[in-house]
Amino acid sequence: MATRIAIQGEEGSYSDSAARALVGEGLEIEHCERFEDVFLHTAKERTEYCLVPIENSLSGSIHKNYDLLLKNKLKIIREINLRVEHNLIAVPGAALSEIRTVISHPVALEQCGRFFEEHPELEKRSAYDTSGSVREIIEKKLRDCAAIAGSGAAECHGGSILLTGIEDNPENFTRFFLLGREEGVTPKSDKTTIVFSFKNSAGALFKCLGVFALRDIDLAKIESRPIAGRPWEYLFYLDFLGNTAEEPTRNALNHLKELTEFLEVLGCYPRDISLERKGM
Amino acid sequence: MATRIAIQGEEGSYSDSAARALVGEGLEIEHCERFEDVFLHTAKERTEYCLVPIENSLSGSIHKNYDLLLKNKLKIIREINLRVEHNLIAVPGAALSEIRTVISHPVALEQCGRFFEEHPELEKRSAYDTSGSVREIIEKKLRDCAAIAGSGAAECHGGSILLTGIEDNPENFTRFFLLGREEGVTPKSDKTTIVFSFKNSAGALFKCLGVFALRDIDLAKIESRPIAGRPWEYLFYLDFLGNTAEEPTRNALNHLKELTEFLEVLGCYPRDISLERKGM
Repeated sequence: MATRIAIQGEEGSYSDSAARALVGEGLEIEHCERFEDVFLHTAKERTEYCLVPIENSLSGSIHKNYDLLLKNKLKIIREINLRVEHNLIAVPGAALSEIRTVISHPVALEQCGRFFEEHPELEKRSAYDTSGSVREIIEKKLRDCAAIAGSGAAECHGGSILLTGIEDNPENFTRFFLLGREEGVTPKSDKTTIVFSFKNSAGALFKCLGVFALRDIDLAKIESRPIAGRPWEYLFYLDFLGNTAEEPTRNALNHLKELTEFLEVLGCYPRDISLERKGM
Repeated sequence: MATRIAIQGEEGSYSDSAARALVGEGLEIEHCERFEDVFLHTAKERTEYCLVPIENSLSGSIHKNYDLLLKNKLKIIREINLRVEHNLIAVPGAALSEIRTVISHPVALEQCGRFFEEHPELEKRSAYDTSGSVREIIEKKLRDCAAIAGSGAAECHGGSILLTGIEDNPENFTRFFLLGREEGVTPKSDKTTIVFSFKNSAGALFKCLGVFALRDIDLAKIESRPIAGRPWEYLFYLDFLGNTAEEPTRNALNHLKELTEFLEVLGCYPRDISLERKGM
């Protein structure tokens, strides 16, 4: 039976490419417009998994998805880093000189700032999805419009790539989480994401990080989010290298429990080493 | 002579209210559509100061403004916390039952989720500014539209408040930074914001926070942002309680210099104690 995965965006989008890279054959993708619905599909057992972007190496964390991850009580099963290459895609036969408007997701538009500086004649228009922008110009045969999207979107909708790699910075990667309803720890799981909060007091965060530093456990990322109803208090999302089934990690988490008022493991999964991170 | 301050948004917006609360009389406000332009106004000496939201107690940091703060090399002179109360504002004489569409800034729309759940007949429409939405419905006499904005916007544009306090969570505060071109440290400055980065290595962040913990210096906030071109490496923005002209803070910063490859003081300013934070 096919693996059912919910994603945000249409066929040919970056999420779509990430899902195909992760699962390969036998994949059935549920395309949603809003991230809220992506999470709900899995939480309500309409799909086995969902795949969401959590962080981009240029624009930073997708904070909304951190909030939704906690709210929907899903678990991280896998991570995958996808190279993002933005292309200018148009109706086949259209020339660059004919283009007046460029449509794409606001983040993609922003990541191609230099291209727009070099082409001040082009007007930008925001859309909810990169691939959906390509579909729109192809379906409506808009010869004076182009879309910014991955090559998957051009292939999928029959668009023609006018320019490749128009992003300002080629070190552009998006990290995705594959989420499910149950934890999936295996001996290959070497990375863990947790979320915690503590009563504010001097040195509290330092002590929490000490739990890891004192055991030589590498941190990979820290992210803070506000706690609703408690102004200027924060939830901390932490990625570290370790397997929750192994002794040092178990000890560190037990130690952290002593220091926090809330602690949850969001998942323990094999890290994607296609682009190595060093500890912090 | 009047103090000239650039803000994002129109007269009557939350930024406008914060600027008036901070400076009082003798204020000339330059209204900009984009945050980029707000910062540029001050960087290019067209205004003495600019005032930007940096953090909301519900939706979190305005990360773009952290990036722009560093990029434009401005200094934090003051902070101010403003209570955000969202109101439903319409053309005078219009009744709630006539309203079909509600216009506002996307964050304001999102912060009134319960109101929209209770009124599924209302359609949401995004705008770049809360107060600008009120102006639009008043100017165009749109009887079937309402806007979500602060009471200052209703006053300013002659709108009628149909409902007050429609936000989901009343613990809704926005923290603003007043920025200038020069540092403004005085003996009353008791809070400092810095930004730093380090070469990734195990325990590096722990050691950086130790600089403060070992001197009993309270942290108030930590925020991480990606470093462009160095995937999965981060800049850390840190707020702590201390005056850069005083010995313990100077020692801590000198110590931090030993551990970091980049360190900059973004400002030392009197903290707004209208809503107390405790250390972390």
